[in-house]
Amino acid sequence: MSDIKAKNKSKDTRISTLLREIAEKAKTASQKLARTGTEARNKALLGMAQGLIDNAPYILDENAKDLAAAAAKRLSGAMTDRLRLDTARLEKIALGLGEVAALPDPVGEVVRMWRRPNGLQVGRMRIPLGVIAIIYESRPNVTADAAGLCVKSGNAVILRGGSETIRTNVAIGEVLRRASREAGIPEDSVQIIPVTDRDAVLEMLRLEEYIDLVIPRGGEGLIRFVAENSRIPVLKHYKGVCHIFVDESADEDMAEKISLNAKVSRPGVCNALETLLVHENIAPAFLPRIARAFEAAGVELRGCAATREIIPGVKEATEADWYEEYLDLILSVKVVSGLEEAIAHIEKYGSMHTESIITQDYGNARAFVDGVNSSAVMVNASTRFADGFELGLGAEIGISTSRLHAFGPMGLEELTTTKFIVFGEGQVRE
Amino acid sequence: MSDIKAKNKSKDTRISTLLREIAEKAKTASQKLARTGTEARNKALLGMAQGLIDNAPYILDENAKDLAAAAAKRLSGAMTDRLRLDTARLEKIALGLGEVAALPDPVGEVVRMWRRPNGLQVGRMRIPLGVIAIIYESRPNVTADAAGLCVKSGNAVILRGGSETIRTNVAIGEVLRRASREAGIPEDSVQIIPVTDRDAVLEMLRLEEYIDLVIPRGGEGLIRFVAENSRIPVLKHYKGVCHIFVDESADEDMAEKISLNAKVSRPGVCNALETLLVHENIAPAFLPRIARAFEAAGVELRGCAATREIIPGVKEATEADWYEEYLDLILSVKVVSGLEEAIAHIEKYGSMHTESIITQDYGNARAFVDGVNSSAVMVNASTRFADGFELGLGAEIGISTSRLHAFGPMGLEELTTTKFIVFGEGQVRE
Repeated sequence: MSDIKAKNKSKDTRISTLLREIAEKAKTASQKLARTGTEARNKALLGMAQGLIDNAPYILDENAKDLAAAAAKRLSGAMTDRLRLDTARLEKIALGLGEVAALPDPVGEVVRMWRRPNGLQVGRMRIPLGVIAIIYESRPNVTADAAGLCVKSGNAVILRGGSETIRTNVAIGEVLRRASREAGIPEDSVQIIPVTDRDAVLEMLRLEEYIDLVIPRGGEGLIRFVAENSRIPVLKHYKGVCHIFVDESADEDMAEKISLNAKVSRPGVCNALETLLVHENIAPAFLPRIARAFEAAGVELRGCAATREIIPGVKEATEADWYEEYLDLILSVKVVSGLEEAIAHIEKYGSMHTESIITQDYGNARAFVDGVNSSAVMVNASTRFADGFELGLGAEIGISTSRLHAFGPMGLEELTTTKFIVFGEGQVRE
Repeated sequence: MSDIKAKNKSKDTRISTLLREIAEKAKTASQKLARTGTEARNKALLGMAQGLIDNAPYILDENAKDLAAAAAKRLSGAMTDRLRLDTARLEKIALGLGEVAALPDPVGEVVRMWRRPNGLQVGRMRIPLGVIAIIYESRPNVTADAAGLCVKSGNAVILRGGSETIRTNVAIGEVLRRASREAGIPEDSVQIIPVTDRDAVLEMLRLEEYIDLVIPRGGEGLIRFVAENSRIPVLKHYKGVCHIFVDESADEDMAEKISLNAKVSRPGVCNALETLLVHENIAPAFLPRIARAFEAAGVELRGCAATREIIPGVKEATEADWYEEYLDLILSVKVVSGLEEAIAHIEKYGSMHTESIITQDYGNARAFVDGVNSSAVMVNASTRFADGFELGLGAEIGISTSRLHAFGPMGLEELTTTKFIVFGEGQVRE
């Protein structure tokens, strides 16, 4: 074996041993954490918030080192801005931890209880999932946000951020771990992976005996890499090709207001509108006015043939456009013959994220809600409401576009499972 | 390329094409099926039941061919008995389909609904998972049972049974598909994979764009093979190392009755008792009587040192015994210092399946239920109640010992997910 190979091999072994140790510690911590009360977990969260404020100079110092490394690597300004922390951003993160502490504890909730003919009382009680690994990219706020949600719901968390913020993440991790210890919950409830090799991620994705769930947060490349290599269940979110269908009975003012809000209020996010479907009977009146509104907002339209007949000069939408998540001020527009065609279009081209119908027709509202099985289906509301906070979950750890375990925005409840609890007085099975 | 290689390659391509076609058809069928009403799906189930009765001669003929092939392969008597169908068994399967038809429809249930400060009404509605693949071994009743549960809950199903029952499964599949067609639901709601190569399973496990969930049912080897090779989420059940803890305050008669029932009523199933933990203060009185009872029932005991002091002649339990799922008339017995040691033992050696405490102490009952996070935690009841029917789910598609999506026995609800439904009157996001 050559020297380089031997060195690589020993590095691989080191990473492998390190990851296994981290995962084992997380599992042990999760068992203790699952048995701590609401009060201790909330105390830890409030301690974390205070710790971030008290240790701001240290954290910002470490962040400055990450920023210097980014400058040396000539990262783009937008990228660098995502890495940057300042006092205001730290205070916002601390505030978020306080808000999570104030949410109801999902653990221990008995979601239902019933009695069997033999007298057994059977219920389902929420318990933590166990150990959750979060794999994310450059934003260091995820470190504290995700840790807070996991600890609140009684889960141990392993955090693996991007290499660009490794020093910041480790510093935040120290603060979170100290606050955990001081609140009487295991400090290994929160662990930061201190190496940033992709190999470390691969190693972690094989540790299914210790880790219960992986949540990748970042670009599609990262998410596909995790999904394809993981033996652990993955909650993933690929893309949001969201649709609005303007029915023939739509209130045109409402349709305009909602379509504009859904497209332009924040075009770069997953719940932004990407395709507008318009009923053929309302298209001649509605399309010209909405086109003017979009033009004024700087939105480029790409239309089907019928759209381009009504509003000449609109660029032609290709087949690829209907699949596209622009994340930009671009919108594809299609005229459809009615509800059925709208639903069929969504089924074929959509990403199962969020769709909304604008209608005054009772039957069509019902048919749309029943007929579309995306993670969020709306009537007369902006797709931008597809968000854990806006839907009232109190928090959001991510959005799932696959149907297992959770579908759509995920809050604290989605970080739990239920066990059966059974109370008897000597029942045996026949 | 040699001729054999070329032939193999063309076979691989054939299987790959076939599997992809099946999966695509299932996905299309699932979209249609999700939009059919309760009535059509129930009609299909009742038609399937009637079809199995009406076509009994054909199905039993095909089953006879499987049995002849089994005889030629010199399969064991027990194995052959699992393949065998007769009129009585077919009638029982048909009866089961009728019972599933009579259960409440989980699809469309709004499990909760709330109002947001901006007036949006937000709810969560149950919808089918989509396409479910079931991979199972020799029992042909699974073909109809699993298909019935999937269709009832609006899911398309792809069934891949063992090679020993391929003819029987294909015959049952024909009957189920005809009943689906006649009830006005897509016949591709139920598909049988007509090839039994393991390669076909591997191919299927990669089709994550079409299949939403895989449920392997069978031995640990099959389940590990599926779990390790699947890109699709897997609901799996490895083993059941179930414990009973006899607390010092236990009613001894009740403890004896429940322990016996849990061990001997059906030793070969996953919810049977494998380890008895006995509080040291009750052990001197309780162990001799329970030892006599187990001896009378033909159960071999394997004990810790303290157990063997109290009941001499008991074989020594090794470290490996505490991890063992005997599935036989063997029981490991350990004396523990109290609740804490019992819980720690379960955490270390258990399989997170089912545990029960026998106690008259209110505080210990609560502490056990809160402190043990197995999929079913019981007080004063036999572990044998860990079963979808016994717990009141109305049906059982399997038992999950991992925590994602479902934990413990799974009924119809566990074959659904929820989407958010949102009703507004023009709300946009600030």
